[in-house]
Amino acid sequence: MHLDHVGVATDDAAELAALFVELFDTEIAHEETFDGMHVVFLDVGGDEDDGPYLELLEPLTDDGAVAQFLDREGAGLHHVAVATGDITAALETAETMGLETVDDEPRPGAWGHEVAFLHPGSTGGVLVEFVEY
Amino acid sequence: MHLDHVGVATDDAAELAALFVELFDTEIAHEETFDGMHVVFLDVGGDEDDGPYLELLEPLTDDGAVAQFLDREGAGLHHVAVATGDITAALETAETMGLETVDDEPRPGAWGHEVAFLHPGSTGGVLVEFVEY
Repeated sequence: MHLDHVGVATDDAAELAALFVELFDTEIAHEETFDGMHVVFLDVGGDEDDGPYLELLEPLTDDGAVAQFLDREGAGLHHVAVATGDITAALETAETMGLETVDDEPRPGAWGHEVAFLHPGSTGGVLVEFVEY
Repeated sequence: MHLDHVGVATDDAAELAALFVELFDTEIAHEETFDGMHVVFLDVGGDEDDGPYLELLEPLTDDGAVAQFLDREGAGLHHVAVATGDITAALETAETMGLETVDDEPRPGAWGHEVAFLHPGSTGGVLVEFVEY
């Protein structure tokens, strides 16, 4: 497995993307509206072409998990996503370890990938996402 | 620049390292006591040999920024670190952009690197660290 991206909750993905593009001398790798959010992936992988990325998440509605996170915690780091070739096996490992899953089964995520989240309460306060390309 | 590591504040770096080693099928890349903290770097770079890493930070004293973070926010994601070949130039870019720095000049960081932090208040709530190897 390898780190795919770090998710950031923000009130303004376009503004924050412009800031990080200048600060890190990088570029936007992908951008879409997904699941009621403006989602921007910034390339922070240097010469690598498969990430990792910073994923900026701007909710466009008041409901949804990221909007609730912004209300509760404010803008900032939200989750880490790890890429796996077999997301079902990754979930089974998590369940075997007694970790609490948010998603029992993979579901469609941003950028056309399959994703599944683990509950941060059983992973040291870190919201972990598995991603399968 | 490229993502060097994601910092995680924890009350028990050894326990959390063991959990992530099993969950992500990875290994500890480096471990040390630095600046009053037990610091563990986990390899989450897949086949890459220059990161990125998860950096687990366990304060061993009650003072210090990470101990205060744990008191205030609880365990979880703490910062993102971006590697640069010229940390002084990176700080100058940040200052030119009007961003608030925590460190005006590079200082010794974990693993023998030079580091400097930017204040999260001017970077979307994300605590950003520059690292020069």
